[in-house]
Amino acid sequence: MPISSARPRPAPDPLLAALQAIVGEAHAIPGDAAGDALVDQLRRYVGQARAVVRPATTAEVAEVVRLLVAEGVPIVPQGGNTGLMGGATPDAEGAAVVLSFARLNRIRAIDLDNDTITVEAGAILSVVQDAARDANRLFPLSLPSQGSCTIGGNLATNAGGTQVLRFGNTRALTLGIEVVTAEGEVWDGLRGLRKDNAGYDLRDLFIGAEGTLGIITAATLRLLPLPAAQVTAFLEVEGIESAIALLRRARKDFGASLTTFEIISDATYRLVAARVPERRLPFPPGAASDRWYVLIEIFDDESEEHARAALERILGDAIAAGEVADALIAASIAQSRTFWDLREHGLGEAQKRDGWNAKHDLSLPISRIADFIRETGDALRAAFPGVRILVHGHAGDGNLHYHIAKPEGAPESYWATHETGIRTLVHDATVARGGSICAEHGVGQLKVHALAHYKTPVELALMRRIKAALDPQGLFNPGKVLSS
Amino acid sequence: MPISSARPRPAPDPLLAALQAIVGEAHAIPGDAAGDALVDQLRRYVGQARAVVRPATTAEVAEVVRLLVAEGVPIVPQGGNTGLMGGATPDAEGAAVVLSFARLNRIRAIDLDNDTITVEAGAILSVVQDAARDANRLFPLSLPSQGSCTIGGNLATNAGGTQVLRFGNTRALTLGIEVVTAEGEVWDGLRGLRKDNAGYDLRDLFIGAEGTLGIITAATLRLLPLPAAQVTAFLEVEGIESAIALLRRARKDFGASLTTFEIISDATYRLVAARVPERRLPFPPGAASDRWYVLIEIFDDESEEHARAALERILGDAIAAGEVADALIAASIAQSRTFWDLREHGLGEAQKRDGWNAKHDLSLPISRIADFIRETGDALRAAFPGVRILVHGHAGDGNLHYHIAKPEGAPESYWATHETGIRTLVHDATVARGGSICAEHGVGQLKVHALAHYKTPVELALMRRIKAALDPQGLFNPGKVLSS
Repeated sequence: MPISSARPRPAPDPLLAALQAIVGEAHAIPGDAAGDALVDQLRRYVGQARAVVRPATTAEVAEVVRLLVAEGVPIVPQGGNTGLMGGATPDAEGAAVVLSFARLNRIRAIDLDNDTITVEAGAILSVVQDAARDANRLFPLSLPSQGSCTIGGNLATNAGGTQVLRFGNTRALTLGIEVVTAEGEVWDGLRGLRKDNAGYDLRDLFIGAEGTLGIITAATLRLLPLPAAQVTAFLEVEGIESAIALLRRARKDFGASLTTFEIISDATYRLVAARVPERRLPFPPGAASDRWYVLIEIFDDESEEHARAALERILGDAIAAGEVADALIAASIAQSRTFWDLREHGLGEAQKRDGWNAKHDLSLPISRIADFIRETGDALRAAFPGVRILVHGHAGDGNLHYHIAKPEGAPESYWATHETGIRTLVHDATVARGGSICAEHGVGQLKVHALAHYKTPVELALMRRIKAALDPQGLFNPGKVLSS
Repeated sequence: MPISSARPRPAPDPLLAALQAIVGEAHAIPGDAAGDALVDQLRRYVGQARAVVRPATTAEVAEVVRLLVAEGVPIVPQGGNTGLMGGATPDAEGAAVVLSFARLNRIRAIDLDNDTITVEAGAILSVVQDAARDANRLFPLSLPSQGSCTIGGNLATNAGGTQVLRFGNTRALTLGIEVVTAEGEVWDGLRGLRKDNAGYDLRDLFIGAEGTLGIITAATLRLLPLPAAQVTAFLEVEGIESAIALLRRARKDFGASLTTFEIISDATYRLVAARVPERRLPFPPGAASDRWYVLIEIFDDESEEHARAALERILGDAIAAGEVADALIAASIAQSRTFWDLREHGLGEAQKRDGWNAKHDLSLPISRIADFIRETGDALRAAFPGVRILVHGHAGDGNLHYHIAKPEGAPESYWATHETGIRTLVHDATVARGGSICAEHGVGQLKVHALAHYKTPVELALMRRIKAALDPQGLFNPGKVLSS
């Protein structure tokens, strides 16, 4: 060999070559060329990987898993990489291989008489929604990240969103799944059945397990009829108790047509006015108050007129009962979109411009939302003077996004001294009311230790036994959900 | 001791005394005094037990389990003992203790703002329905055995029934459960949350496991608003394809208000006329034909008039499209009850009087029901000339109760030579179409071997690993679901 002053080239990784032999040279790349696949969407976690591999078929996934398990290599599945908990990001050790679903993304079948669609895990949620709509059907899972998140990620985290009140979360929309096990075998559980009590419910065990028990490669999902009409209203109410009273009325009077019931706190609404002044708001923001805003949507099976008549009648009753201060029923699809755009993008944009805040994804029994809001707010303000409490959420599901911003003008170093105290107070208050600290975003890396703290030893032991039974070497997404 | 000619009294079982020390003397009895607790409802299985124990609290259940597990004694949980698969009957060895839920039957709480009810496993289903109704709420699980089956049994078998189409099965109606594990520990998973992604879905793993993984002692169940109106119709259609076309139309046009869609075959209907002549039928039975009968029910959130107008409009369209030959909309609650009574009692009574038949509880993708009915019927008639095929079921859920009666006049010995062949043909035809051989009745003892035959080795291995992880000694309801 000629003498050279260049740094010696590292020997090629034989594992990479073995992966390339399975998926093709272009579809397995070394980890140091993996770029965004190593960083989570919020850029909170930056990992390392030995390689990123992109299989195109379930059989290739199984072969990749057999190879990696035989070599003792950890596997981190990754869909759209839109998660908020670091669940799809490898750790910093660099031993893991990222298994990307970018190429395993076909729509395999639509069965209109059975009202089901079978899709691969890498299919983008909005692509599945569109395929359903093209077939004159509704796939109701609806999330802000739907243009880039994948069905596999939705299944791994049992994603929720804005229509859970009516249609349930991802689990409720799933009839069957296909999974590659830690033995590299394929479990074909792609059943399109509404009743099936033949044996243990493996489906729901893999759903929501964040890739730590098995790797979901495809799913058979429920489709529903498209609604005849969809009407949105934006409301002002005084006090969280009024919002809850209105929810109770809406559940009773709209019945099955109630699809969305979202709340936004006054402080959050005023933050949008302050930080995103170019955005037109449905109502002018007032001075600091105990006001709440409610976004309500109904899907009507009959007609637009029927939907509007119901909204006008029921909101009229609510105004008469003093539950609603003011109401706007969207007169057009365009106006409905401005309401939704405020909810799905305006709140996030305002908080982004405001600076980092401590986000919590909580759920509570609906009967405990009001006292949680009042008492936890008082406790936070007493313990951490000047904090700003920004709340919005899917009140119909008991799900609050409860975000704490530092006091106006406080330096960034505020968080170094106060973040842990704030999180502990919020989580303690949630658990004390029978709530969950992981409502719809999952556990990922971020909440592994909090989960271990708040779960009972009995529940943790059950979870660890299941993990050991299905992934005895602990190679499937290690460090997520449970600490390794 | 005086000399006596009496048979020596057997020494009292020390285990019985230990059980009595936990639950009180009256509530643990020797197995030979257990009577009906040792026999299943269809009197297909007659078991033996060492004792029957009736704890009154979850803590007593846990103490009983710790005692029995320490002694290596199998435990057979038993609720209302209404199961059809022998899942609550001990085996003939006599080593097991039957754990009865007769005393663990309180309603612990109703939370109206959260729309939940928390009940103990031994609560009778109809008691829970009534408690919900007294609180102006609906608990929609609805079964013929609701007057004697328990919530614990419903959970153990993930019971279905006649309103699954709209409200889902027991699993879909359950938010949280309390379980006694094989360590005799209590897992308090009684959460009233609609979104909770904190860790693995233990809830759905225990539900439907028929007491083989853990013992469910209580549950937090969903409540719904009572419908404003409930209207029933009974229809005649020509050919199974018309029934399926009608189902498609009903799902689309009724949307969320469609609650029940049941079908009854012509042969089944005519059997009622022949065997139960005292019963008045909605339509006079004709000669043997390709006719089907459909029972449809809608729950309307608005009003009786609105419900009737929708039924008349949509059934009118279906008649115009040739999907429906004749329709009766119940004019009163009394008439609605006669339709339901035919479905829930008439069909069973006719079959009971007709003699034993080979029952199957199948589910299929709805798109495969028609070809299953036609092709399986042809195959059965070719292979077993003269058999009578009696079908009814929850077509809206793809669930068929597919019962084969022996040819008219054939001796009872017919079954000895033909039962296995008939069952194999029916099960093969189901599985070939992506169906399940255990739709809503569970596996119990009856289908353990069929399940082992039709499940893939991958799925069976996953199930066995979970069983070993949660019940390492195999003492929880042995021989049910999986062979021991």
